[in-house]
Amino acid sequence: MKIPNLIGYHTSSEGTITFQTVNPITDQFHPELFVEATQAEVDRSATLAKGAYRTFSRTSPMERAQFLRAIITELELNKSLLTVTYSRESGLKEQRAEVEFTRTIFQLTSFADLLSQENLEIKHIDLADPNRTPTPKPQLIKYKLGIGPIVIFGASNFPFAYSTVGGDTAAALAAGCPVIVKSHPFHAHTSFLVAKLVVKVAEEHKLPEGVFSHLNATGYEVGQRLVQHPFVQGVGFTGSIKGGLAIQQLAQQRAVPIPVFAEMGSLNPVVILPSALKKESDNIATKLALSITQSSGQFCTKPGALFLVQAVETTHFLETFKTIFEQQASYSMVHPTIARIYTQRAKQVIDQTNVHLFAQGTVTKTCNLGIPQLSITDGHTFDTNKLLQEEVFGPHALLVICKDQLELEQILENIDGQLTFSLFHNEENIEAQNLFFLAQEKAGRVILNGVPTGVEVSPAMQHGGPFPSSSDSRFTAVGTDSIQRFLRGVTVQK
Amino acid sequence: MKIPNLIGYHTSSEGTITFQTVNPITDQFHPELFVEATQAEVDRSATLAKGAYRTFSRTSPMERAQFLRAIITELELNKSLLTVTYSRESGLKEQRAEVEFTRTIFQLTSFADLLSQENLEIKHIDLADPNRTPTPKPQLIKYKLGIGPIVIFGASNFPFAYSTVGGDTAAALAAGCPVIVKSHPFHAHTSFLVAKLVVKVAEEHKLPEGVFSHLNATGYEVGQRLVQHPFVQGVGFTGSIKGGLAIQQLAQQRAVPIPVFAEMGSLNPVVILPSALKKESDNIATKLALSITQSSGQFCTKPGALFLVQAVETTHFLETFKTIFEQQASYSMVHPTIARIYTQRAKQVIDQTNVHLFAQGTVTKTCNLGIPQLSITDGHTFDTNKLLQEEVFGPHALLVICKDQLELEQILENIDGQLTFSLFHNEENIEAQNLFFLAQEKAGRVILNGVPTGVEVSPAMQHGGPFPSSSDSRFTAVGTDSIQRFLRGVTVQK
Repeated sequence: MKIPNLIGYHTSSEGTITFQTVNPITDQFHPELFVEATQAEVDRSATLAKGAYRTFSRTSPMERAQFLRAIITELELNKSLLTVTYSRESGLKEQRAEVEFTRTIFQLTSFADLLSQENLEIKHIDLADPNRTPTPKPQLIKYKLGIGPIVIFGASNFPFAYSTVGGDTAAALAAGCPVIVKSHPFHAHTSFLVAKLVVKVAEEHKLPEGVFSHLNATGYEVGQRLVQHPFVQGVGFTGSIKGGLAIQQLAQQRAVPIPVFAEMGSLNPVVILPSALKKESDNIATKLALSITQSSGQFCTKPGALFLVQAVETTHFLETFKTIFEQQASYSMVHPTIARIYTQRAKQVIDQTNVHLFAQGTVTKTCNLGIPQLSITDGHTFDTNKLLQEEVFGPHALLVICKDQLELEQILENIDGQLTFSLFHNEENIEAQNLFFLAQEKAGRVILNGVPTGVEVSPAMQHGGPFPSSSDSRFTAVGTDSIQRFLRGVTVQK
Repeated sequence: MKIPNLIGYHTSSEGTITFQTVNPITDQFHPELFVEATQAEVDRSATLAKGAYRTFSRTSPMERAQFLRAIITELELNKSLLTVTYSRESGLKEQRAEVEFTRTIFQLTSFADLLSQENLEIKHIDLADPNRTPTPKPQLIKYKLGIGPIVIFGASNFPFAYSTVGGDTAAALAAGCPVIVKSHPFHAHTSFLVAKLVVKVAEEHKLPEGVFSHLNATGYEVGQRLVQHPFVQGVGFTGSIKGGLAIQQLAQQRAVPIPVFAEMGSLNPVVILPSALKKESDNIATKLALSITQSSGQFCTKPGALFLVQAVETTHFLETFKTIFEQQASYSMVHPTIARIYTQRAKQVIDQTNVHLFAQGTVTKTCNLGIPQLSITDGHTFDTNKLLQEEVFGPHALLVICKDQLELEQILENIDGQLTFSLFHNEENIEAQNLFFLAQEKAGRVILNGVPTGVEVSPAMQHGGPFPSSSDSRFTAVGTDSIQRFLRGVTVQK
């Protein structure tokens, strides 16, 4: 069965390149043939999006809220088919499918609520003063307007919540921006099924054709053409540093550069002070082992490096942590390619001078396993080997044992920008200490006595830290604040 | 007399390159020799700024408000010296000096008020819910943090309000970001005198050394080195498209790219519909003539192209407009270079095929005159000659006479992004018409029945439109919202 592109309200499969998805648990290919979008199809989706923009950007927030709520209804009606396809294509279990589906609905609901409650259209009104000297003061009304058609790249690790109608798409549609989704080839069927629902709802709501399009792609060309298309006005991306930087560069090289919000890789450092270990060493060990290994560590917020200082408490913690970690099971990763790269990268880390394998999870017999691994090194080695500071996407973390807190802080001064920075402590007033300042300067989110995985969807969430963890730390990719990525101010002066 | 750089709390003049400023009214050089900053001095200012950041970013909003208010006090105490130097270096008259000085004070006051009234530190609090299933909900507190040391480029045309401690610097300091000013060489003495006051206040307030530095530069190198310096985290720039793009490219090529807010050139189209001319033709002519010629048209919001449609009212308007425009006097521009480029560019426009000189202001005998000029062309010529769509910085505007409103709208669909878009009309419900949608899509500010010059400082102001009028239309350069350029969110999760 051929799976077409969805361009406006029409299916289209003009191309000759096709690809299939694979069940990573069995290595079996699925029968559907996805037809990769051609240059002409990219162009048509962008032209339709540009045409839809003037009408869609002028819909009332309430109309857009109704659109989002109708999408929710359709998703819920089709939940069973969607979650089965999701698990079949990603290897992620039913429970995870459930959590992610719920999250996707919650995200859409949050934006619908935002649009229903808050008047985004009129933000500031500054009244006229005809008697002001030396010149009369005009009336100023400032409101927010969607910036134009947005391209969203589906993320491999979140087939629902950061793909087709996930956080980025919901934010862009809420802002009044038409969306073109470049579907992720690892879960192209899940994406297509979701996209069909969105298109159906858009048509039922009599929204202009082109408000949503969905393109299949397995190579780089479709994404490149979309980012370079003159009618595209912004990009949302979740993925690797390499991918995000390539998109950012393309966007900057355009005759008219456009904003890209790329949520990229992160090491997500976790500092575990002896004071915390005195209090609840075993609990921390359990929390961290789960945070590193759940869903095979395929989260952008997975802890990648754990920093400890030499102390009796640390020695005891490491023993417990090793035992608990070795009980963690291996699962299939979302795709053979992801599993292969994970295995290579984890090995590369462990092969570095002064780095050793510390603990390993249990191995099962399914395909494309991400075997949980903990490696260990000293502070100086970590500080002087940049390769150890790069994300390993999957269930691996590096233990970094520092001589003392001074060395620990010196090392952390040198690390790159991060999505998160966690701090297990039992100190008085940690927020007045240097380590806390360091954490807030390095990361978008600082977690005190908790793990970084499990990103709450909230207006109080900041998901996006200093470069290279995101391309612009002034915006967030999670929570309703993420709508600001796709809005600009317009002042009307009378 | 040698004028040093101000690096932290110390003067420094290690370089061998010096330059002078000139009085553009007399073409006389001033005696002061400004010592251009060396690479070592750039490096020292950036190192001090980085060192100051951790302390300064943690000061309370109230402390920063006090800092800004103390700067205001010093500016006012030294007003007479400052305005005399301002006029001597820019040729701008006493009345303009007065207006701009008042604006500068108002900008600083606005930010001080913002910091005093609003709690920028705690923006969103999302309370914990330990009973939530399946996982307990943590507490989230999101606040804003300055992004780091900022480089501000002084603008040639606003020696007070968009230079040393103008809008950009006030916004960055309010955000808790240390500032390094690359002083504009055309008014280097005015800038130095203002900078000395800021440094004095910072020292008196016991702020960390490096919270403010001021570097002299006549060439490109100092600016380049600052933008490329690894300790610099953001840039504010007001000037030409060419200058802004060069800075933007440098910032993107860094190992760690940084945000640049560049407010660049703009044509500021003005549409004058026959319905408006029926009502108040002479009034519009007077307003526009002043808007084009005041301060020799040296405003980024000066109307550069006026669009009319063939009609009896238009013919009558043009006659009046010609008469009024020919009464406008010529004044010295802020610098011989600015005057030379203006004269060349205005001539270049008038020399294009199908463009003619329509009216010219009166000529006086001072140096470096910007002679007010109106040129005229037809819609097709404007639409097909890109050169006519580029800003001419100075008292020139191009009249574009379109066949009808349809041609007018078609032409305006093709223009680049603009800071402003003005619309003189006498229509019912203009805000539901295509012309209005077009205006809001092209520009950051839409002015109904008014001229674009005179940018109000207000939280309801949007100064920054789609590219190339600014580098990022999601931010504004004027009004307290402009602080968002220099802040990022941090969430603390407990």
